[in-house]
Formats: sequence, C-alpha cells, structure tokens
Amino acid sequence: MDVLKDASAVVGARPDKVRKENLFETARFFLDVYVVGPGQAQTPHVHDGSDKVYVVLSGRGTVRVGAAAHDVRAGHAVFCPAGAEHGVENAGPEDLRLLVYMAPHPKPPR
Amino acid sequence: MDVLKDASAVVGARPDKVRKENLFETARFFLDVYVVGPGQAQTPHVHDGSDKVYVVLSGRGTVRVGAAAHDVRAGHAVFCPAGAEHGVENAGPEDLRLLVYMAPHPKPPR
Repeated sequence: MDVLKDASAVVGARPDKVRKENLFETARFFLDVYVVGPGQAQTPHVHDGSDKVYVVLSGRGTVRVGAAAHDVRAGHAVFCPAGAEHGVENAGPEDLRLLVYMAPHPKPPR
Repeated sequence: MDVLKDASAVVGARPDKVRKENLFETARFFLDVYVVGPGQAQTPHVHDGSDKVYVVLSGRGTVRVGAAAHDVRAGHAVFCPAGAEHGVENAGPEDLRLLVYMAPHPKPPR
C-alpha cells in the first residue's frame, strides 16, 4: 500500500451514485473520500460494531445522526457512534466532499 | 459528547509544544487536530497495536514513516501502520494543521 495519498485529487461526483474512493484500510479502520453530488445522499444506515466520523473537505450538506440533522460545511466533523442510524445528503449546488473514517473496518480486507 | 465539532476553529500553535485538541474518542478510535508550529515536531515513535493516519488541513511539513520522509501539504493523507516508527515536523513558515486519527485508541477513555 502506498502510504501517501492525496485527498485533494478526489474531485468530481459520479452521475449515478455517491462516489467512494478508499485511501487506506486495515482490519482496524478504513479511510475513504466520498463525493456526494447535488441531490445525492447516503441513505441512513447503522453499523452495530463500528464508529464512523465524517469530516467535510468542501461543499455543504446535512448529516443525520439518530434523530438529529446537522448542517455541515468545510471543517465540520460529525461522530456517528456504533448503533446510531446515520446518513448524509447534499442539497447542492456544489459537490460535498467528505473524509469518512470507520473503526474497526466492518468488512476487513483479506 | 457533542457529535458535531469544527476542526476549522482549531487554529494557532502553542509556543511551547505541539498543540493537540481531541475532537472525538471511544475505545475504537480517536480523532485529534494537531497544530505544529514552525520549528516544532512530533518526535518519531511507535504504536504497536494501533494504526494512525495524518491528514493535512493546512500548511506544509514532513511526515516520516519508517525510513521514508514524505513532504506534505493540504489534502495529503499519510498512513502509519501499527509497529512503524512515525513522526511529523514543520520547517515553517506557516503552522501545520493536521487531523490525526488512530484506531484502536491506545489509551481508551473510561
């Protein structure tokens, strides 16, 4: 695995679904970059045994954790504890770019 | 714990040592913001059972992982696997601001 990656190079949404690019993964964690285009969303879901953090790199959006909705922009970090339903949506007009950390990895690489 | 934090508000180095501000922590991970002032460094060290990732928010610096030194700037992410010696230094002139993620937490909160 290359130990140096450039998250700033991950720009541009996919037309069909949220773009997810993995930077690093082990059994202990993964770090992805998501690009959520205007009108796209990650449907609320739950990980029973893993904690997630979203960190906004650019754009704006809404992160839901449990019953709460948080409007976010660059620099905001949102903690989604194991067992809490969470999701993210982008009402536009810019792409929403996020770092997504999860620990431990819910589907560990071999 | 407040699930929404603002990493962009963590600006300004300490005069005496690397500034470390925790955003979130559980037994599974921690996420800190470090502000490394010009001339400051985190001395190379090892975590035997935890993986670390540095992500540069602003500034420039050098991250060492094992025998390699990586010059980094905003958007760069560096993976420091468990067992690999790693550290970071800032030759200046700007503050180097980093997200520092580690999993699992080496000293879990109670």
